[in-house]
Amino acid sequence: MGRNLHSLIRDLQRRKARERRGLVLAEGLRLAQDAVASGVEVVALLAADDVAGGAAAALLDAARQRGIEVQLTGRRDFDLLADTETPSGVMAVVAWEPLSLDHAPVPQRDGAPALVLDAVQDPGNVGTMIRTAHALGAWLTVALDGTADVRNPKTLRAAMGSAFRHPVSVATFDEFSRYAAERRVVLYLAAMNGEPVSKAEAPSDPSALVVGSEGHGVRPEWSKLAHRRVAVPMRAGAESLNAAVACGILLYELTGAGHR
Amino acid sequence: MGRNLHSLIRDLQRRKARERRGLVLAEGLRLAQDAVASGVEVVALLAADDVAGGAAAALLDAARQRGIEVQLTGRRDFDLLADTETPSGVMAVVAWEPLSLDHAPVPQRDGAPALVLDAVQDPGNVGTMIRTAHALGAWLTVALDGTADVRNPKTLRAAMGSAFRHPVSVATFDEFSRYAAERRVVLYLAAMNGEPVSKAEAPSDPSALVVGSEGHGVRPEWSKLAHRRVAVPMRAGAESLNAAVACGILLYELTGAGHR
Repeated sequence: MGRNLHSLIRDLQRRKARERRGLVLAEGLRLAQDAVASGVEVVALLAADDVAGGAAAALLDAARQRGIEVQLTGRRDFDLLADTETPSGVMAVVAWEPLSLDHAPVPQRDGAPALVLDAVQDPGNVGTMIRTAHALGAWLTVALDGTADVRNPKTLRAAMGSAFRHPVSVATFDEFSRYAAERRVVLYLAAMNGEPVSKAEAPSDPSALVVGSEGHGVRPEWSKLAHRRVAVPMRAGAESLNAAVACGILLYELTGAGHR
Repeated sequence: MGRNLHSLIRDLQRRKARERRGLVLAEGLRLAQDAVASGVEVVALLAADDVAGGAAAALLDAARQRGIEVQLTGRRDFDLLADTETPSGVMAVVAWEPLSLDHAPVPQRDGAPALVLDAVQDPGNVGTMIRTAHALGAWLTVALDGTADVRNPKTLRAAMGSAFRHPVSVATFDEFSRYAAERRVVLYLAAMNGEPVSKAEAPSDPSALVVGSEGHGVRPEWSKLAHRRVAVPMRAGAESLNAAVACGILLYELTGAGHR
């Protein structure tokens, strides 16, 4: 691929290019390792030529053995291509894109609900929530319109490889609400004025937890659909939890993990 | 204070200066509002002269009425002093410092345990955890040696004003372990190999949850002290939760919030 790999990486820093090409950037040693280990298709690896250490060398060897193109480049060039402030010196180009809802897994009754992100704008929060959904056993994460790009390098770094192992979909509000109605998915909305989540019984039908942004919560259109509102009880005077922390507590409680 | 306020702010970007002066920077409209509303002593407010909007004007008025020095400055100068990438144009200098353990509140038996941060290095995570401890009703947060500076502007922004309303202490490992032993504080250590936290009964004595960094967990020296190890159960194949998310779920579960 030669210098073309540099151009490709520069191109993939743009959302449109990621969508058109079906490729994303996985930056950092650990995330690149995760991509290679997860079985997702790794198109190429770029490494700074001063990258040292057994782990990086082992990764490059493993990649070469699998027929993945590995390219070394000068540190200055690498840092210019990197998205992070202190680049570790390894970056993978990965064939990954979110699923359409048609290709999402069959809704599960057991375990955690699906997680639906309703205009969660911060890529770091979106990635952390995907990581949480994966760890707690959610059957799907859906990013609705207005949510940060799930293919954003920041999102993928915060997801720590979970996006390569856990099903992630992108959908509009209308698409998702039709999907949920057709499959009888019970909706739990995270809302400040919701009932304490510990009181909400896990339903016998498959379910989904909908979380919004810290500032605005979920969009009012949900009210048209059957749902329950749930909240993490907070001490008087405390105004809010970080969105990813609240999402983690709600998902944990709705899996019934606390009652097992 | 004139130009001296600019010098003071520049000085407070250094950890040593924050410690020596007992002052911190609260950057951003919302955090500055929180500082003024929380009752903590606000020494001065600096605002960019193009700051518009009712909320900012109201804050500056409220501050002036309380005798707080308010200074306007050019946008360029403001941005040079600011720590954030897209500065909102308001910054407060606040008289705030963590408590020594001698001045910490009496350990509480009810509600959430205290939260102990054992070498949590990321200021954003530290701030998010302080915010969580406050929201869930912990009686104290203690930052042990090796933890990011609780006075760091990034920590305070992530804490969203919780640091001004919730007791925060700084201590060495030895100081804290003596304190815990003397006051019969029951210790729960967050550990990958811990028992599922839902199985851990809330003790009748006051308690504390100790969390470490994502990479390294808590330090081995805790083994010398009586403790229980707790974990958030995860799906097979998922390797970990974000440290702040795991901390939130553990604190939530240990408050007994899920069983009320």
